[in-house]
Amino acid sequence: MRLDAEYARELDRRDPLAHFRNEFVVDDPDLIYLDGNSLGRLPKRTQARMRDVVDNEWGKRLIRGWGEGWFDAPQRLGAKIAQLIGAQPDEVIVTDSTSVNFFKLVMAAFGARANRHSIVTDDMNFPSDLYLLQGAIRLAGHEYHLHIVHSEDEISTPNEALEVAVNTDTALLTLTHTAFKSGYIYDMASVTEIAHRAGALMLWDLSHSAGAVPVSLNECNVDLAVGCTYKYLNGGPGAPAYLYISRDLQEQLLSPIWGWFAQKGQFDMKPDYEPAPGLQRFLAGTPNMLSLAAVEPGVDLLLEAGIERLRAKSIAQTEYLIALWEAQLKPLGVALNSPIDARVRGSHISLGHPEGLRIDRALIEEMNVIPDFRYPDNIRLGIAPIYTSFTEIHEAVKRIRQVIEERLYEKHAMERPEVT
Amino acid sequence: MRLDAEYARELDRRDPLAHFRNEFVVDDPDLIYLDGNSLGRLPKRTQARMRDVVDNEWGKRLIRGWGEGWFDAPQRLGAKIAQLIGAQPDEVIVTDSTSVNFFKLVMAAFGARANRHSIVTDDMNFPSDLYLLQGAIRLAGHEYHLHIVHSEDEISTPNEALEVAVNTDTALLTLTHTAFKSGYIYDMASVTEIAHRAGALMLWDLSHSAGAVPVSLNECNVDLAVGCTYKYLNGGPGAPAYLYISRDLQEQLLSPIWGWFAQKGQFDMKPDYEPAPGLQRFLAGTPNMLSLAAVEPGVDLLLEAGIERLRAKSIAQTEYLIALWEAQLKPLGVALNSPIDARVRGSHISLGHPEGLRIDRALIEEMNVIPDFRYPDNIRLGIAPIYTSFTEIHEAVKRIRQVIEERLYEKHAMERPEVT
Repeated sequence: MRLDAEYARELDRRDPLAHFRNEFVVDDPDLIYLDGNSLGRLPKRTQARMRDVVDNEWGKRLIRGWGEGWFDAPQRLGAKIAQLIGAQPDEVIVTDSTSVNFFKLVMAAFGARANRHSIVTDDMNFPSDLYLLQGAIRLAGHEYHLHIVHSEDEISTPNEALEVAVNTDTALLTLTHTAFKSGYIYDMASVTEIAHRAGALMLWDLSHSAGAVPVSLNECNVDLAVGCTYKYLNGGPGAPAYLYISRDLQEQLLSPIWGWFAQKGQFDMKPDYEPAPGLQRFLAGTPNMLSLAAVEPGVDLLLEAGIERLRAKSIAQTEYLIALWEAQLKPLGVALNSPIDARVRGSHISLGHPEGLRIDRALIEEMNVIPDFRYPDNIRLGIAPIYTSFTEIHEAVKRIRQVIEERLYEKHAMERPEVT
Repeated sequence: MRLDAEYARELDRRDPLAHFRNEFVVDDPDLIYLDGNSLGRLPKRTQARMRDVVDNEWGKRLIRGWGEGWFDAPQRLGAKIAQLIGAQPDEVIVTDSTSVNFFKLVMAAFGARANRHSIVTDDMNFPSDLYLLQGAIRLAGHEYHLHIVHSEDEISTPNEALEVAVNTDTALLTLTHTAFKSGYIYDMASVTEIAHRAGALMLWDLSHSAGAVPVSLNECNVDLAVGCTYKYLNGGPGAPAYLYISRDLQEQLLSPIWGWFAQKGQFDMKPDYEPAPGLQRFLAGTPNMLSLAAVEPGVDLLLEAGIERLRAKSIAQTEYLIALWEAQLKPLGVALNSPIDARVRGSHISLGHPEGLRIDRALIEEMNVIPDFRYPDNIRLGIAPIYTSFTEIHEAVKRIRQVIEERLYEKHAMERPEVT
């Protein structure tokens, strides 16, 4: 593969999705933003949508807004996200945070598998999911336990290791579909089948997949899923999350949080809780309309681009980045902490270096490159195929090389970055 | 009291808070909006704030926004709301919905009173709180139960009735401070004392108080509180809610939802959950920044107006409304379903009429008045003293009278209104 800058420009000229970059606010053309898998860029349409929901819907229509599109926003947005993850329109709603939704589904799974006492996950799962599982286990009682499968290489967990851990006492197997650190993609169909063979439910966290990696929840017979909308879905900082429950399970499951938006006949104001039909029972409080409104334009853009075309571009871009790494960064002592096989690799690449944290700080503060950092030594480069260009990837590697070759990181302290 | 229109205008001219109305978007000057206790009006400053958080903070600063004011927004906003409800700055955070926060605190109370099995509330509580309590009881196990004290007149519950229900098996007493239907204000100090005498914790829902009725959580030794920000706090549709935990209890309580924002040393990404110090442990997922940003300007306006001055105006306005009711609506068969004594009455008035629902529809669809309706026959008139004028109250009663006298409601179907 050619590695010169002109070739990057040629790849951009040939990119059928290149024009989507113009749909996003790009304030500083020199900034190389490789953290769209922590917080996606702002779609220009979202600016207009936010003015409308604030100035017109809230400002002028006031409480009447609820009858004019707000009330069913969780379902309407869910139906759109369903198209990105291979689900039916009535199997996805947008509500609360990923953490709260994950908690609801874990507790619901315990309810649906009442005579089973274990949850299985692995140590490549996002720490927040591990914490939430520990909290759910504690709530459920002393006879419950969490089994965390150990991934030996921190890049992938083989199905065999999961298979050994899942048994007839397992209520739930839960994993993050695209691992937040390595970018490894689990085989959704065969892993889900492991859970089902043992009679357990399967819950996938799609936060690092949806919008960049095609997901086929229905085809893979997935029971439960959650995901966030502020990464590849470009929904804005802390945007509301979504949850999925397969249609055949919806009437069997109960949320632990019985808020009024989960009540059948909500405005009858009857004193006794009666679960609303379908997914509505997994709503809780009043939907957060301003943030919900911001989610829609980003999802629309992904649907217009097409998830298969996005995936094709994402693979071309991570392959290109790996070729650049191999030629220019590997000789400098930078490790590839992501799968080499594109078929099991998501849309971000983790590079390892003993000085990873200080390199990350130098890139942000001196080189106008924003990657992400993940403990202990991962520089995470997120590619959002809807707006990341090949030229940016080429330039990013050039700047990383400069930081290492010129030891620009040495003046930076070992301090932790802020978020996400 | 004079009941002519000129006197209403005179009261407005004398109102020291009248100029605050100019701080809000008033699109249609003929519209009489008496539903600010369901969804407050849009502050003009919020329009500017939302442009800034979307276009600049998200659009230009991207992920860096977290280090530039987003990360501590739940605490910063909480400290401001604390001033409205008589709490210390580190005793309030803004996060999630009222329902989710209520759930967290109820479950935390069970944890802190592990050998106690009952929760006491009353049937004037908002149905959502009752549903959430039923869900929490179900999660806690079969030996737990909910005791709902019956209010005989649906206007107020006497302390004696609560005292009988609370005993040494009570983990928690919880009530809505200003009742959503009647507007009755409980005596926070003496009711909290009832809980404490029995060794129970006290949880107040402040949704219909904060911003219109002074609340002194610290002075009344309150343990726990929640409230919403989209009513008198003018935070926008479905805006994030707040929760309060008294400082001495914070390290004793655990949230049931162990999301990563509740983790000590969040970005260490350690595998085991360790609760963050103080209130932070009651955060869950990534804070919803766009909606959080919208909360601040409305709270600032209330702080500038001053809660005592707002309360004085609110009392003057409900007294004025009751005088108009007595002279002009009572003779038409309209009942007063709110306390007559201003000291125990919040900032809304419920009027009862057998045709309440149809009168409500006629007011909205024909008379350009927006009240609220609460099952079975309550027309709820919410006064937001920061922007409601005496002239509006006078005109509202005139239009209600016309609807009843001319039987304009008769053509309206018995259908339920949309929200909130």
